[in-house]
Order: sequence, then structure tokens, then C-alpha cells
Amino acid sequence: MESRRGNPMAAEGEFSELAATRRIQRLSSHISPAVATPSAPLLQTEACVSRPKKLEVNGEALSLYLRGKHIDIQEKVYKFYNSRPDLLTPIEISMDDHRELCMRQLYALVREAGVRPFLYVADDPEKYFAIMEAVGSVDMSFGIKMGVQYSLWGGSVINLGTKKHKDKYFEGIDNLDYTGCFAMTELHHGSNVQGLQTTATFDPIKDEFVIDTPNDGAIKWWIGNAAVHGKFATVFARLILPTHDSKGVSDMGVHAFIVPIRDLKTHQTLPGVEIQDCGHKVGLNGVDNGALRFRSVRIPRDNLLNRFGDVSRDGKYTSSLPTINKRFAATLGELVGGRVGLAYASVGVLKVSATIAIRYALLRQQFGPLKQPEVSILDYQSHQHKLMPMLASTYAYHFATVHLIKKYSEMKKTHDEQLIADVHALSAGLKSYVTSYTNKALSVCREACGGHGYAAVNRFGSLRNDHDIFQTFEGDNTVLLQQVAGDLLKQYKEKFQGGTLTVTWNYLRESMGSYLAQPNPVTARWEGEDHLRNPKFQLDAFRYRTSRLLHSVAMRLNKHSKTLGSFGAWNRCLNHLLTLAESHIESVILAKFIEAVKNCPDPSARAALKLMCDLYALDRIWKDIGTYRNVDYVAPNKAKAIHKLTEYLSFQVRNVAKELVDAFDLPDEVTRAPIAMQADAYAQYTQVVGF
Amino acid sequence: MESRRGNPMAAEGEFSELAATRRIQRLSSHISPAVATPSAPLLQTEACVSRPKKLEVNGEALSLYLRGKHIDIQEKVYKFYNSRPDLLTPIEISMDDHRELCMRQLYALVREAGVRPFLYVADDPEKYFAIMEAVGSVDMSFGIKMGVQYSLWGGSVINLGTKKHKDKYFEGIDNLDYTGCFAMTELHHGSNVQGLQTTATFDPIKDEFVIDTPNDGAIKWWIGNAAVHGKFATVFARLILPTHDSKGVSDMGVHAFIVPIRDLKTHQTLPGVEIQDCGHKVGLNGVDNGALRFRSVRIPRDNLLNRFGDVSRDGKYTSSLPTINKRFAATLGELVGGRVGLAYASVGVLKVSATIAIRYALLRQQFGPLKQPEVSILDYQSHQHKLMPMLASTYAYHFATVHLIKKYSEMKKTHDEQLIADVHALSAGLKSYVTSYTNKALSVCREACGGHGYAAVNRFGSLRNDHDIFQTFEGDNTVLLQQVAGDLLKQYKEKFQGGTLTVTWNYLRESMGSYLAQPNPVTARWEGEDHLRNPKFQLDAFRYRTSRLLHSVAMRLNKHSKTLGSFGAWNRCLNHLLTLAESHIESVILAKFIEAVKNCPDPSARAALKLMCDLYALDRIWKDIGTYRNVDYVAPNKAKAIHKLTEYLSFQVRNVAKELVDAFDLPDEVTRAPIAMQADAYAQYTQVVGF
Repeated sequence: MESRRGNPMAAEGEFSELAATRRIQRLSSHISPAVATPSAPLLQTEACVSRPKKLEVNGEALSLYLRGKHIDIQEKVYKFYNSRPDLLTPIEISMDDHRELCMRQLYALVREAGVRPFLYVADDPEKYFAIMEAVGSVDMSFGIKMGVQYSLWGGSVINLGTKKHKDKYFEGIDNLDYTGCFAMTELHHGSNVQGLQTTATFDPIKDEFVIDTPNDGAIKWWIGNAAVHGKFATVFARLILPTHDSKGVSDMGVHAFIVPIRDLKTHQTLPGVEIQDCGHKVGLNGVDNGALRFRSVRIPRDNLLNRFGDVSRDGKYTSSLPTINKRFAATLGELVGGRVGLAYASVGVLKVSATIAIRYALLRQQFGPLKQPEVSILDYQSHQHKLMPMLASTYAYHFATVHLIKKYSEMKKTHDEQLIADVHALSAGLKSYVTSYTNKALSVCREACGGHGYAAVNRFGSLRNDHDIFQTFEGDNTVLLQQVAGDLLKQYKEKFQGGTLTVTWNYLRESMGSYLAQPNPVTARWEGEDHLRNPKFQLDAFRYRTSRLLHSVAMRLNKHSKTLGSFGAWNRCLNHLLTLAESHIESVILAKFIEAVKNCPDPSARAALKLMCDLYALDRIWKDIGTYRNVDYVAPNKAKAIHKLTEYLSFQVRNVAKELVDAFDLPDEVTRAPIAMQADAYAQYTQVVGF
Repeated sequence: MESRRGNPMAAEGEFSELAATRRIQRLSSHISPAVATPSAPLLQTEACVSRPKKLEVNGEALSLYLRGKHIDIQEKVYKFYNSRPDLLTPIEISMDDHRELCMRQLYALVREAGVRPFLYVADDPEKYFAIMEAVGSVDMSFGIKMGVQYSLWGGSVINLGTKKHKDKYFEGIDNLDYTGCFAMTELHHGSNVQGLQTTATFDPIKDEFVIDTPNDGAIKWWIGNAAVHGKFATVFARLILPTHDSKGVSDMGVHAFIVPIRDLKTHQTLPGVEIQDCGHKVGLNGVDNGALRFRSVRIPRDNLLNRFGDVSRDGKYTSSLPTINKRFAATLGELVGGRVGLAYASVGVLKVSATIAIRYALLRQQFGPLKQPEVSILDYQSHQHKLMPMLASTYAYHFATVHLIKKYSEMKKTHDEQLIADVHALSAGLKSYVTSYTNKALSVCREACGGHGYAAVNRFGSLRNDHDIFQTFEGDNTVLLQQVAGDLLKQYKEKFQGGTLTVTWNYLRESMGSYLAQPNPVTARWEGEDHLRNPKFQLDAFRYRTSRLLHSVAMRLNKHSKTLGSFGAWNRCLNHLLTLAESHIESVILAKFIEAVKNCPDPSARAALKLMCDLYALDRIWKDIGTYRNVDYVAPNKAKAIHKLTEYLSFQVRNVAKELVDAFDLPDEVTRAPIAMQADAYAQYTQVVGF
């Protein structure tokens, strides 16, 4: 039972050894259950003089604050596809047709709508991600197909290559003459990229590299755009150079090479390249993933993407970076944009999903008090519990990922080293944290919409199936969280050696000492609403947890590595490390949310954001209450007060839930689910099935 | 962050105010991280003299103990369909073709394989559910299609009708000449069955009922078998009788009627019946769900399923049951078999899913210690954390649902009233609890298999999509849990009035008093392994929680109902009530698991079961540690010991994980995922894509 809805302590005033204070009793009397008339929720059967009945939300101001500066290009995309029913994906479509349709959707974007995403990949990532979000809302397969072409294939050429590559390939990639793939993953190696086995052996006589798949485990697998449409592939392979010593060759580690896989004119598979179709997937079936085997495929020496390492005519290796590991890190570092994009796109999916589930929950009525009309299901405490913290989280992740994109854009401009490290860890953490959350939320939303949530037209099936792999591609979530933990530990060590910390975890530098002190037994009992809703209390609680986790895991690793070695010690502490990484990411998300509340210019929008920020913070503290109780950071009476306040805030958010989802500004053409239409939802739904 | 992997307190010996005892330190030194060679896990780098290195599991004995007495008929089903590739569902199939295929699968079962499920619906439910499990493993749509025909349509006729109905319909239902539907749900009413609006008005002149859909909200929706194949429908409608008073009519509440919807010979839709297709669903697209509207459809008086209420020739109503509510309860009570079947089938899905994920985790290697071979991903603590408590839960739910089926069979024989109430609550609780768990587990398994888990051939997509609706149909999970809570409260009140309790919650009768005493501060600190693995400690902890939740919610309801009325009070306590219901179901599951361990005749199988039972129990206590800490049922040192032991037991289970999934006895033809084949999995996988 993982539910954190209620626990005996928090729920039972009657049993508590520590009597609840009057203040909490007064508060609890305000948490009246929701009994609503059909059209408008009329709550608060016990009047509450000191509180406004319902927050007034200036939806327009809130929406303006949320939406970025790239509304225009998104509207352009929406408008274009809405005017082209031939380009919209039907509910039922075969895999082959879906792949062709996605390719046509992409051609139309570039060649008809005149949107040129490749122009922005390097120079205006914010705009690029805005296009990707809009395109993904037409069909997520289309969004991923576009990402494969421009961010993965195109991005690898311009980020890992040099001027000669840009000169030769930019235009073809941009105008889709040069469709391409990103061939990194192999059948046996996904996360462990340094374990890849494909080889690129330099032949000094012919001045060529020879690409080989040494065994079945090294077959390139899951390569998007490979099964049908790709003409080129960026192939990651071990660079093998001939040497004059007894071994005869030297393995220089994983490098990236441009390998033509199909003829530019005939589209025939080129000699030595074997392509198979990876077939049906759980979702994203509009993307043609293929498997590639190479048998002595020859490419010119120029096809090495040589930004971080090059081979001269006579087979000498040169690099500005001293070690294989540094070159490898630099290479992968350039690919971080994919993670940034996924974290952001995942929030987009969460917005659509939460909007559908909440609009339906407002519409749907079931049961009610004796001889009174049925009530909206969002008036049930259990339904508020399912959806209101989710809505608050959606806002939280929105601000966090917008922040990440800004940092990333800055990084692409300045190439500042600290910023690079920071964006690397932050994108790994947010991608992992947000996609895991959205994946669970999609199931919660489907279930919250009952049987009608199971109708394909109402979207949860395809959203979940398409989004599912966000947890795995561009870095397995469990692996990425370990990178976050590793980075924190590195910072931790540097701190104790007097070094500086990168920006995301300034809080650790500033106040690690104070967080590690014993919890204050007086504040541990404070339970007033003002205190619990104070951002300082909330942020302190999040950071306290992170600091303790970091300090303790550092000591455990130190202890265990003496007997188990570093790999063994890491594995012994793995659960602890993952919890640390999540705790850190939550601290960052909360800090960004608090900042976003503070910076919101409109007072009514700011009040709505503050309400959700409080719900987000307290819900998370409550979900982890065991941790806080164990170290007496929170006394039993305070735990109870946090729980009650969380229920109350959920109820408060419910009262403005319509305005809050409206502020996402998702038109009916984007949500598309009949049960979530903004007018006559039931009628539109019955019409869909033919009545 | 809902993760319960580790928390600062449990993880950091260094910070704890309460120093961990030597015993725990000794224990923790045994929890060595898993560093394995490729083929066999070699663990325990620090030797542990007192423990066996690896449990020896007698797989055959364990399997024999698990599998029921209906292996034969299941094997017959497997064998029949494996010999008939024309009857196997391909990965890609259009909805229309899928529906036709499912109908053919069902015809073949009855007319070619000679399996006759309808014979067992009433008389041998265990056998019926065994057939359903086997059929569902061929294609879940087929399983549900069969359930609609025999359990819902057939079941309603034999359970709600009388001899005349059985005489007239039994054979046709059995041999599939009379295909039928179960038309309960309406567009606007799912959970609230008493709110249905379809009417059946008696016309005394023609001795007929007239079936009408009064408005769009009353259109029968999601009716399985209606869109294409059904000839009849059991329609739930308000029985309206003419009266001689001023109102002219009397609403007798919801009753069930047999309504022919298509011509037996021509299959044309009958006059007055309008049928639309509900279209594509998230899953189960082999089942043809339709929507039905009735316009003055006339049926003979005999078509009222009159077991609990009848109408005479002159329009007089008679019933053995005194009130509308009692008749409604009796009617719905007869439909409980569907829930029993779903709970059991959900465990079947969980077994397949866990088997695939665990077999793949044993196969897959990624990363490893420096200059050593890569390790199996199941050797990672994080992966053990994902899958080992899940494996233990699968065993737990297996025994619990087998118990439920036994009770249900007994109930069908004895019609004992207490047993009926008990089976009603237990089936509601287990169906809800198990299907929610399986739904989450399917996503965890997909993610645990990384990219290869996203290949459609590896099953997680279709399993999740098909299973998803198990949470909703046959009773929305959130609604069903409330029925459990309601039943507990009823029992609670009766107890205090000196009445008897039904069998499932004997524990409440026997020991509620002792559970409600203040926790013992001495035992709250006991942290020895013998104590933590003692079933008495585990069961006491589960039951203590349930008893407190029950007692406290009863008091809260009592308090709030004075100001809010009963509906308002219930809603105010709703989260609390749902937590109570889940806690109770967990108590029942654990009790049954402990019993199953005790009764296992083979000592080695028993030891394996005991290991998993301990993991199940301690993992659940750890997941809810905040609750136990809040009331000081568990002191900080004990919380820490529980967490460490959970990690250690997960590691122990990992060492026999292969044997434990093998004991489910699922042949490769049932699991079907190439990545989980018992030999040459990678080779079979590459072959599937064409290499």
C-alpha cells in the first residue's frame, strides 16, 4: 500500500498522545467536504469568515506569464495542421502508413509551412523546443521523427563535426534531402556507451575508415529513421588505429562517423550495410526504428566527426583533450540537448493529460447526498487527492524546465565550463524525474476518467504509449539519476577541499553546515499555517533532506569502498544514491517554483501560483513524512498539520481548477479528447460514436 | 518523490542519535552488493558463515504447490491454440479483424476444442476461472469476450433468472447460438447503478414491458458484444408499474430484462434498437463494445429476470425481499463472480509480466567493476528494489486470490449469508487492490527492460493496455474500496453491539482491544532479525494499523456527520476510508500468505515461500513507515533495521529469482516475449527482426 492519503496518526485526533492545538481544530473545521450543485461547486458548508470563499484567478495574466515568447510559431504550427486533415493521424493506422504519414508531416512542416527547425537547433534552442512541443502535439511520433532528424542526426553533425561537415551537410539536413539517423545504441549496449563494440578501423592506404559489426550483440538497434527513411547515419564506433608496436592496433575509444546507408538517388541500401526493421513498438509507431549491421563498410577519412579528435592522413591521432574519458565526456556533453527537449516535452504531455482529466472531473457527476443532485467527481476528496497535487506538480515542472532551457541556451552561447557541468546534471535529473512522474500521472489520469478514459479518442492510451519510452531513451532514468548523485558527490568533495560549486547547488555551499545540525525541537513542533506555507520552511525541509542524504552517503561510500571497491560500494549504496538524486532535483524544482511565484507581476496570478507552490511543497513533504519523522525534523503534531493542510490546499485548488488548466492555454484542437471539450463535451462524445 | 528506497534516517548510521546495535551492524555487513560473473551470481564478497550462500529451491515441489488442480484443462487450451496459428493474434491487426478473430477463437474453443466454459460458471467456478486464465493468455480480448458471453450475459440469465430462463437459454448460450451482452452501464452512470435511467414500463394490456432510453445520458455504453456479435442483451432498467393512484406509475427500482437486439437468423438490428460502435479503446480491441438506444422496444413479461422480484399478469409486484435496496443488493450480489475472476486474472497478468522482466534482468548485462565482465542488471540494488518485492507480492496475491476463489465456490454451493457478505467485500477489496498494483507493476516492468521492453513483441504494451481497464470495469476501484470500508464499519458497529463478525475480519473481533492499546515502547525497539521475520510481529503490525484506522475513522465519521450529514462526513473522511480499506486487504493478504507458507508440505519450497512472505510483509511496513513512526509503533532503530532487512531479503530473493519465476510454470508459448525465452533469448530476438 503505497498510498499516502491518510495515516492513523494524521487522521485521528482522538488517539494522538499530543493533543492537536486549537488552531488545527479551527483549520480542520474549514476543510468541509465538497457538496456541489451541478454547475458550480458550492462548498464550505461551515462558513469561514477569515478566508475568501474562492480565489479569483486572472486567467489571462496567468496564461501570459506561463506561455513563452514563442507562442506565434506554435500557433502557426497548430493552424497549419488543423487546416490539413490529410496530415492528421487517424485513431487506427497501420505501422507502415503511420511511418509514411509522419514523413509527410515533416516534409510539410519544412516545405509547405516554411518552418525550419534546423536553423534553431544550435542558435535558438528555445524556439526549437517550442516547435517540437507544437509538432509533438500533432502526433508525438512526428515530434520524435523531427527530433531524430534535426536534434540527433543534424545535431551530431554540427556539434561533433567541424566546418567542413557543416558546409557539406547543413542544407541537405535542413531541407530533408539528407535524412539521417543517430546510430549509437547496440543490441547489447544501451546505457554503457563506452562498451559499444562497433569498430571503425583506419586504412592508411586508402585513407578510409572501415566500419564493422564484430558480432550480433554489436548490431545497432532501435535506430530511428533507419528502417525506412534515412540516407545517412552518425555511427558511434571504436576508432581503431594501426600502430607499429607488437599489438598492431590501438583502440582510441568511441567516436562518431558519418556513414551513408542508402543511395541518395535510388534509396537502395548501400553495399555492406544490412538493415532490418525493429518492428512494432509499444508506441511511437510513426517512427521507423531499424537495426543496422555493417560488413566492412568504407567511408572517407573526412567522415569522422572530428571536433574533439582527429586522424591525420598518415594515421596519427590528435585531440585538444588529453584522455579518452575527457573526449568521451565532451562528445556526450554535446548531446545533452535531447534530454533538455525531453524533459520539456514531458511537461507538455503532462499538461495535456492533466487538462483532460480535470475538465472531465468537473463535467462528470456521480452519486450525491440523499435526494440532492449528483456531485461533480472533482468534489470528492479522493479525486482531489489524485489530481490536485498533480496539477501543482505540472506547474512546478513547467517552471523548472523553462529554467533548464534558458540555462541550456546560455550554455550554447557561452560554452562556460561550470554551466556545462550544471546543465548536464540538471538535464539528467529533470529528464529522469519529470518523465517518471508523467508516466505514472498518465495512468492515474486514465483511471480517474473511468471507462470513458479508456476510449481511444480520449487520448490517454496513445499519450502513455508514446511517452513511455521517454523514461529510457536519451539516457535510462536510473542511470541518469546516478549521474546526478555522482555530480553531487564530486561537488561535495570539492567543497571540503575549498573549491567552488556550480550554480544549481549553491544552497549546499551556502548552508550545508546549518542543514546538518540537529533539527530544532521547537520548530519541529510549529504547526501554524503561516509557518507551513512559508517558503523558507519548505525549502529548508527539502534542502535539509538533501544535505543529510549527501553527507551520509558520502560517509557510507567511503566506508564500504575499503572492503568492496568503488563499484561494490556504489552498488551497496545505490538505493540511497537514487534517493539523494531525486531529493536534490525536488529541491531545485521547489526553489524555481518559489522564484516563479515571487516574479509573477500580476497579484491574482501570483496568489494562484503561491497556492499551488504550497501544495506542491507540502504534498512532497507529506509523501516522505517517514524520513522527516525519523530524524524528528517534524514532530507528530506537525506531521498531522501538514497532512490536514495538504488536504485543505487540494480542496482550495479544486475551486480554481478550471481556471488553472485553462491557463495552460491548450485549445480543443490540441487536447482533442471529446470528454474534455470546453463546450458540450458529452454531446461531442456521443456524436463521435455516431449518435 | 514517492520513492521509498532509502531515507536519511535508515541509511545513515553515522547520524542517528540512537546508535544502531551491534546486531544490525553485523547484519549490514552481510548485505554485500552483488557483483556477479555473467552466468551465475557470485555474491557475498564478505563471507557470511552463519547463512547459507544460496537457498536451494525445489522448483518442482513449489510449482506443484502453486498450480491448482485444473492444470489439465489449461494445458489443453494452450496446446489447442499453439497448434492453430490461424487462431493466434498477430502483433498488428485492425480493430475489425481483431473482433472477428476473437469471435473465431471463442467458436473454436467451444465447437472445436470442446471446452464448454458455461457448464462451470455456476457449478465449478474454479474450473471456469482456470479456463479464463488460459484463454486470456492466448489473447486478453478473447478472455474478456468469453467473460462477457458466459459470466456476464450467461451469468445474469442463470443467476438472476429462474427455471424458465435456464430452460430456454442455457443451451444457446453454451453453444454460442445465443450470443449476448450485459447492458448495465449508461453514458452518464457507471458506478452509480441505482442512478440508471433506462426504463422498462409494464403494459398490462399487451402483457409486455416497453424498454426506453429517456435521454442521451441513458444510452447504454461500453456494452461488450453489442457492436457486432450480440443477439441478446440483459438490460438493466427501472421497472415502472402502472398504479391506480394520482401519480399513475410506480418506480420499483432497477431490474434486469432479456432484450433481443438482433434477429437470430438475419443478424439485423431489431426495430426500436439503435446500436452504435464505441470504437477504438486503449486496449482489448478484440472486444466489440457498443452503445445501445431503445425506442419503445417491446419484450414479453417473461423476459424479466425474476429471481428476486416478479410482476404478475395483472401488474402486481411480488418479491421475497422486502425493499428496493435489498433487491438491488441481491441482484448485484449475484454478479460478484466477475470481480473474483478479474482479481485472479490480474495476478495471471502480473505473473507473466514479472516473469518477462526478471528473466530479462538475469540475461541483460551492463557495466561492471573495472576490467571485469559486466554484471547482470538484476545484481544492481536498484533493480532488485524494483523487481524483488514485486515477485514476493505476486506470490502473495496468488494465494489470496486462490483463497477468494475457494470462498466464492463455497458460497455458490451453500448460499450462506455471512459467506455472501464476506465474499462480496473480499472480492471488491482484492479486485481493487490487485488490479491497481498490477497496473503499476506493468509500467515498472516495461521500464526495467529498457528499450527492449518497448518492443511490441516483448508484450508489456499490450498487457498494460489490455489490463488497464481491470481497474474500472466490474466496479471502479475507488468505489469498491469504499464498499470494503463500509463493510468494515458495519462490522465494527455490530461488534460493539455484541454481534458476530464475518470470517475475513475475525482478527478484529478477536483482538481489536489489544491492537488499540498504546504501542509497547519495548517491542517498538526490538530490531532482531528473528523478531522482524516472526509472522506474529508482521501480522500484528498490519492489524494494528487496520484497527487504529477503523476505530479512528468511526469516531471522525460520527463527529462530522452531526454537522455535515452522512454524505458530507463520508467525503470529509474519504482518503482515510480508502487507506483503511487498503490496510485491511493487506492484512488479509498477509494472513493468507502466512497460512500458505505454513501449509506447504515441501521444506525447501516452504523456505522459499517464507523468504518471500517476509519480504512482502517488511516491504509494506517500510513503505508505510511514516504511519508506524508517527504512533511510535516502531522506534527509529527498528525502522532502520526493517529497511536494511528489506534490502537484504531482496538480495536473497534475487539469488533464487530464476527458480521462483520458473515455479509459475509459464511455458515460453505463454510468455512469448523473445527477451524472456528460456534459451537463446538474444538469438530469438534478433531472429524476430529478420537477422
